[in-house]
Amino acid sequence: MAFGFTVIKKESSSNARLGRLVTPHGEVETPAFMAVGTAATVKAMTPRDLEETGCRIILGNTYHLYLRPGIDVIEKLGGLHRFMGWQGPILTDSGGFQVFSLGALRKITEEGVEFQSHLDGSSHRLTPEKVVDIQERLGSDIAMVLDECIPHPAEREYVRASTLRTMRWAERSLRARQENDMALFGIVQGGMFEDLRLECARELTALPFDGFAAGGLGVGEEEAALRAIGGYTASVLPEDRPRYLMGIGRPEDLVAAVAAGYDLFDCVLPTRNARNGALFTSAGKMNIRRAEHASDPRPADEACDCYGCRHFSRAYLRHLHLAGEILAAHLLTLHNLTFYQRLMARLRAAIREDKLQEITAAAREATSGIQEEEDAV
Amino acid sequence: MAFGFTVIKKESSSNARLGRLVTPHGEVETPAFMAVGTAATVKAMTPRDLEETGCRIILGNTYHLYLRPGIDVIEKLGGLHRFMGWQGPILTDSGGFQVFSLGALRKITEEGVEFQSHLDGSSHRLTPEKVVDIQERLGSDIAMVLDECIPHPAEREYVRASTLRTMRWAERSLRARQENDMALFGIVQGGMFEDLRLECARELTALPFDGFAAGGLGVGEEEAALRAIGGYTASVLPEDRPRYLMGIGRPEDLVAAVAAGYDLFDCVLPTRNARNGALFTSAGKMNIRRAEHASDPRPADEACDCYGCRHFSRAYLRHLHLAGEILAAHLLTLHNLTFYQRLMARLRAAIREDKLQEITAAAREATSGIQEEEDAV
Repeated sequence: MAFGFTVIKKESSSNARLGRLVTPHGEVETPAFMAVGTAATVKAMTPRDLEETGCRIILGNTYHLYLRPGIDVIEKLGGLHRFMGWQGPILTDSGGFQVFSLGALRKITEEGVEFQSHLDGSSHRLTPEKVVDIQERLGSDIAMVLDECIPHPAEREYVRASTLRTMRWAERSLRARQENDMALFGIVQGGMFEDLRLECARELTALPFDGFAAGGLGVGEEEAALRAIGGYTASVLPEDRPRYLMGIGRPEDLVAAVAAGYDLFDCVLPTRNARNGALFTSAGKMNIRRAEHASDPRPADEACDCYGCRHFSRAYLRHLHLAGEILAAHLLTLHNLTFYQRLMARLRAAIREDKLQEITAAAREATSGIQEEEDAV
Repeated sequence: MAFGFTVIKKESSSNARLGRLVTPHGEVETPAFMAVGTAATVKAMTPRDLEETGCRIILGNTYHLYLRPGIDVIEKLGGLHRFMGWQGPILTDSGGFQVFSLGALRKITEEGVEFQSHLDGSSHRLTPEKVVDIQERLGSDIAMVLDECIPHPAEREYVRASTLRTMRWAERSLRARQENDMALFGIVQGGMFEDLRLECARELTALPFDGFAAGGLGVGEEEAALRAIGGYTASVLPEDRPRYLMGIGRPEDLVAAVAAGYDLFDCVLPTRNARNGALFTSAGKMNIRRAEHASDPRPADEACDCYGCRHFSRAYLRHLHLAGEILAAHLLTLHNLTFYQRLMARLRAAIREDKLQEITAAAREATSGIQEEEDAV
């Protein structure tokens, strides 16, 4: 199957839409949340666990895979799907976000970015062309172009220069593309400036990308401002192609972003929080470490039907977490990812029934305060 | 169901027997290997994973559970089975082995043993009576008496005095027992001295224990000598009650001990080795860290049908292990425990068919060299 995207239904009260993403590894209903599989594994999850959570598409990190085990190994083993035993679609990022997070360890030029490995300090260079080639060799279903993830806050002039370079890199990425079924998404940057976002979106959407992402909206700015610029960016992207909000977010962010018209999401929050004992539940956030759970026989989330909630008490989960048991990370991750997938299923149902506004309040309530957990991680 | 044990069949060429253990939580065919669930979890395994390996009975560690989360919590949550979600039989040890491993942190008196927690240094005392009470409160199917695990090598006079005290403790344990369905096993000590083993076995087997264990045979002595005294101990235990060889062992040890007439086994080897990248396979030991596996597309064990071997390559397992991924511990543990359960199933089939000698050689070959891995852990 070649790549495709169809909007099935638009919601009446918002910009939300129900869609169908077709990839060489199967179809995905959107809006969809992608579990993050950094090192060719969603941490503490087998592929069958992931399927059980309702997950249908995952994200792989080019930067991490490039460094370890290396693209040659994965290619020799038949590509990323076969290597990690995941039969569904995989979107790979460009490695840009990780490289730019390296700070002093990386240097940006017009050609690309040079960086030193966080594992062994070895020197590497990624260019737009190389990043496309890597993702083709991984066998990705959806590849992302190399972009510069602009740190916040940033001066307008820096943002403009960086965004223009990202746009030049986007054109080079398209030219580097081989004939195959891999989709390629452009990434709209432009910082917190509406006019730069618009300029970037106009240029990119004139190019034959299969979809578009909004980048640089994950961290470092005030929440309302981020949400506003995220919503604005969605509004200037074409209706007929998928919109991916990169690296977002909390359940309440997902609800808002779906309403703004985004279709795809990824975030480490459910998996990372799980390993730190922070749960998302239908009754709000929960820190399983707290003494109040020490002998509580109830499941973590009484409204959840995940394997953990069906079989284990808060007391047991707390014990496992405090004892540093691997099973704690496994069960809490399974729960959090199930919570996220259930939320996405509810959002899709709400779009179908034109009732998106009804669940916004509930989702906000359920997740209020999770931010502190995230910050503490 | 009350506790019971039936010998179904004796093997013609050895002292091995096929048996059926009946417990309040179901039946188990013997010889059986118990996965070790130290802190109310077999590390990196859910109960459904354990069932998938073929495991039917597990071991819980009284010492660890007593310290964390505490017996009160587990009792309040409905007992150990319900707490950890394991529906099958559980044998609990007495905590003796762990306490005696504390060395300078413990002191033995006629009354019992005083020790300091390895977690927080707090002071505790275990007596034969308290240990029975704890295991009753845990809801154990099979409880072990408190004994002194004699360090090797040891002088005859020390061993004799210690063994006599262990025998007095055994009598106190039986008197402390309440009316319920929990089985209580006596533990034969006596170090490396046949006459002391015999004396201890004679005294204990005159008492109404539901089964008998051979203790103190796990570490510190030359292998042939340990095997000889283990075989001797089995030979002086009654035919009609289950015989449990504590803390043993390697696959080749299990084969020898089954031939000697033992019915129950536990060992951390398959689980601990898995977390360190050491696999048991039908082609011998395997250290998944080794560079030779870096791009090997074969499953860890081509004769294995565990989830890991059905879906993942050696290259992938190596990558996960080197990246420190939780999934490595999970998949390697699942494999090793499956290997152990398959071995036990083969031993039971061999007893049924009077062909035990035929598999002894193969088991030895498959595991030669694993000892180095164990020592390196």
